[in-house]
Formats: sequence, structure tokens, C-alpha cells
Amino acid sequence: MKSENLLELDIFHLRHMLTVFGTIALDTTRTPFKIESNILGGAATFASIASSMFTETSIVGIVGSDFPEEYRNILDKRIDTRGIITDDSEKTFHYDSSFDYDLAHRTTIKTELNVIRQFEPVIPNEYVESEYVYLANNDPCQNLKILKYFLNRKLVICDTIEYWILNSRDSVVEMMRSVDGVVINDDEARLLCKNTNLVKCAKIIISWGPRFVIVKKGENGSLLVTADLVFPASAYPLEEIVDPTGAGDSFAGGFIGHMARKKDFSLSTLKEAVIYGNVMGAFAVEDFGVKRLLSVTSEDIQTRYQEYRNLTQF
Amino acid sequence: MKSENLLELDIFHLRHMLTVFGTIALDTTRTPFKIESNILGGAATFASIASSMFTETSIVGIVGSDFPEEYRNILDKRIDTRGIITDDSEKTFHYDSSFDYDLAHRTTIKTELNVIRQFEPVIPNEYVESEYVYLANNDPCQNLKILKYFLNRKLVICDTIEYWILNSRDSVVEMMRSVDGVVINDDEARLLCKNTNLVKCAKIIISWGPRFVIVKKGENGSLLVTADLVFPASAYPLEEIVDPTGAGDSFAGGFIGHMARKKDFSLSTLKEAVIYGNVMGAFAVEDFGVKRLLSVTSEDIQTRYQEYRNLTQF
Repeated sequence: MKSENLLELDIFHLRHMLTVFGTIALDTTRTPFKIESNILGGAATFASIASSMFTETSIVGIVGSDFPEEYRNILDKRIDTRGIITDDSEKTFHYDSSFDYDLAHRTTIKTELNVIRQFEPVIPNEYVESEYVYLANNDPCQNLKILKYFLNRKLVICDTIEYWILNSRDSVVEMMRSVDGVVINDDEARLLCKNTNLVKCAKIIISWGPRFVIVKKGENGSLLVTADLVFPASAYPLEEIVDPTGAGDSFAGGFIGHMARKKDFSLSTLKEAVIYGNVMGAFAVEDFGVKRLLSVTSEDIQTRYQEYRNLTQF
Repeated sequence: MKSENLLELDIFHLRHMLTVFGTIALDTTRTPFKIESNILGGAATFASIASSMFTETSIVGIVGSDFPEEYRNILDKRIDTRGIITDDSEKTFHYDSSFDYDLAHRTTIKTELNVIRQFEPVIPNEYVESEYVYLANNDPCQNLKILKYFLNRKLVICDTIEYWILNSRDSVVEMMRSVDGVVINDDEARLLCKNTNLVKCAKIIISWGPRFVIVKKGENGSLLVTADLVFPASAYPLEEIVDPTGAGDSFAGGFIGHMARKKDFSLSTLKEAVIYGNVMGAFAVEDFGVKRLLSVTSEDIQTRYQEYRNLTQF
């Protein structure tokens, strides 16, 4: 019995459920109430920590010589980090930004690409059987290249940001053609689709190929759109927001994490996954950086999910 | 049997369920796609037409010499209009505004107060037994004065606008102390409460007296807040918005109309009423002015309510 279990474990280690590809960063985040310098951040960090609460997660990314041992340990403890390259000749990607009084508008103070500039991602052999893949806010061409390694992919979702829409719109569209689902902010959906109506934007993206689009609206929740359905979901209502950084990536991590855990693509699972995404986003903003995500338990997630259901039912 | 029914009807006519007090206007509404001049508008118009789909509604307001017979007939057909004063020496309140491309931002071109300037509202005797009262966007002092006429009031809700918050904040607070519920736009809640978090804003208003606050967020739905509950509701998702004018007042009319129809103040009725409010707001924006509201049937409302429930369930 015991040996059988061990064998299963071994197979499991070869077959990661979910791989997340994106930035690992040192963030300096300034709110009107506090400044936190060089804290652990990055799209892949938030997404993979969130998804690790649902399923075995592996990460692909790069860090520099200044990446603290402590942060590495945080990641090592929760996710498979064999896909993280350490470039000792450069510093870690650094993003410095400040929020204004209402914590709704972020201003970039400094973006130091550092290790990201020449990054050639490597997919460890152990990852290639991942069935679930989340391509965060990287260069869409790089995302497309990476995708080819995953031969057993069942569900690939991607996000994108203003920078790529403005500078490589064709590649963004090309990337979206190749994925199953798109997770995107409201403003970026409008910019990408040149339309102000979010349902219409989602349908435009769907016309390129993906089966579904999730438009993230921050404190206003999200819209899941498929060819024949719209599922609007309010955000979990919070009275205190400390740092909005990473909310969208935590949403994506919770979403794809639940999809990978449930292993089916029914509409009800998609809807559940959106709510888990909302729940993870709501946790993320309760403290600086990943601090709150690190203290969240599976029970907390389930409690908030149930609370959300009770709140919104009528 | 027949005579008993007639008697009941007679009593019913003396005892109006709901009175709406607010502006009746001629609107000129400019969108990037079309301009409609001097169409029927005003907060009380939208709210009372919406509420009349749920319960017997009476209106208090004023119009001028130029108020078209056709518009008067529209109101007469649906609501008790004995509370409308016609001032033949003046013109009807006229509001001229334009929306920009995304139909989200309105710019006032001209506000001609006309009859509104010297308006002394009169409450017909037949109205004073109204148990439900909606005080739309009028001068809060006038709203307070009017309120005293309704001796059997069971549920009074009010709205307010930026103008009164900026010019008579103390009176706005005083008015809110005297009502059971407040319906208010997100931006105006923030302005009134000097706080950016909408749940906190609602709780500040509740601390003044009302039992509940509904924050309207336009295309992002609404938040119902009581002392111990938050009920976030997404908007009914629409792909085509023609004219956002009156959405908030139609929401309020649907909300209080359903409350009056159900005659109870349970949490589940409050939540249902919020959804009916959402549904009426969504109908209102599908055409210019009140056009869509006038063609809506009870069946349409029930169908959309059910659709909304199906869409949002998970």
C-alpha cells in the first residue's frame, strides 16, 4: 500500500498540474499611508501563490543576484521553482509605483527591467506535461513560444497589459488566438478592442478564438463572457484595502487553480472558478504585496467563498 | 361579492401605496449617435413610471405652459397626477446635456429651472395616506417639509445630487436622518461622506439614521448596505446602451415599487427589490428618455428578473 502511494507521488511529480509564466519582481509600493520597499511581487508570484492553494503549481521566471533568500524560500515552500533562472550578473526586475488617496489609480515611478531584458525562459522537463498554463503579462511573442512546450495542455489562459497592446497589438491578438481563455482588465479590454462596452469587447476577443474571456473590473468585480453567456460577478465587498497590487494576478491564479483542481470545463465550474478568483483577489489587497496571501488557509478561502455565496444570493 | 370588491377598490383609491416627489422635465439629450430634443424626462417621471409597474403610484411635481398634452397623457395613463401643478406663466424645467463617446460621462449644456424656481409643492389629500414615499433629487429642505404630510409612512427613501451636497450638505444630512433608506450614486456617496470606500460611505450614512443605503454604480451595479450586511449586485449586462438618462431613478422606482408591492421589510424582500431596481435601470437605458420603460410589460420585467437570477447564480 505504502509503495503504491509512493509510486503515485512520483508520477505526480512528473506531471505538474499547472505552470505559471510571468514576472517575479521586487516591488516598491507607495500608498498614502505607508511605503514598502523591495517587497516580493510580480505577476507570476501573485498568480502562483494564489493557485498553489488549489493545485500543484510550478513557475517559470527569472530573478537576479539581489533576490533575497527569504523570498526564494517563500516560493520554494509553495511551488515548484525549478523553472526560475537566477542571473547573477543582473538585478531582479524592479517596479516602483505609488497609489493616490483612493487606492484606485497607480502611477509608475520607475520600471527597472534588469534581468527581464534578456530573458530566455527555459521550461524544465518536469513541467512539460502541465495541463494547465497561465501566461501572465509577458511579451506575447514569448508567451506564444513557451506555449509550444506544453504538449498536454488542456486549458491555457493569458493576460496582457497596456504596454503590449500599444506596442505589439498584432502579437497580442495572435497570442489570444492560441489560448482557451483570456483574463484582462476592463481598461485594457477597451483599449485592445477599441470599444467601450465590455460585453462587446469580450465578444470581439472570443471571435479571435478563445472560448471565454474574463474582464476584471477591480472593486467592481468581473464579467465572464462565453459565446452564449455573460456571468457578471460583484467583487467581494471590502471596507479596508491596503495595497491593490497583484489583485488581478491573484484572481487569475485562483481562477485557473480551481479549474485545475476540478478538472472539468463545465459552465458551473467556470463560474465557481470566477468566484474563487474574486475571493483570492480580495485576500490579496488586504495587506502589502503577498503578505495576506501567505497567511491564507484553505479554510479561509472556503469560508469566504461561502460568505460570498450567501451575500450575493437573493 | 361584486359590491364588496367595488368597496375595496374605492378604499384603494383613497389610499395610494406610493408617492414620488421630484422633477418632471423636458430633456434635450445628445449622444454621439443622435440628439433628442424636449423629450419627457425628470427624476420623478422615470421613478414613477418604473414604480407604476409594481404598485399604484402618485406623483408630486410641477410643469409649465409648454408641457405637451401627449406627455401629460403618458403620465395620466399610468399614475395619479393630481399632485402635478401646471404653472401657465412659466416653462417646464429643461435639462440639456450631452454624453461622450462611451456614454459614461455627461456634460450639462444648459439647465433652465423655469417652473422649479418658485415651486411650492402641494400634496393632494388623496396622497397623504401613502405608506411609501420616494423623495428624488429635490432641495433636501423641501423634501423634509413634504415628508411631514405623510402620516402613515412606512418606508421613505431619498436620493440626492452633487448640487445639494456642495451647497446644502447639512440639509442633506438632516434629510437622511429622517428617512428609512438612501439611494445614492457612487460619486455622490464619496463626495457626501468624504471617503472613497463605498461600504464605508454607506455605513457613515447609516450612522446618521437610515436603516439601509443603496449605492448605485451605473454599469457596475449596486451595493445594498445595512448595519450588518452588504449585498453587492452586478448590473444586468447589456451590449447596447442608447441613453443612460434616468437609469438611477428607474432603479429607485423599481426598488420602492417592489417594496410597496411586497409590503414587508425582510432582508430577502430588500434584496429582491434591489434586483428589480437593477432590471428597471437596465430597461431605461435601452432607448431615449422613457421610451423603453413605456413599452415594458410586467412579463418583460419578470422574465428579465429571472434571467438575472439565472445569469448570476453559481
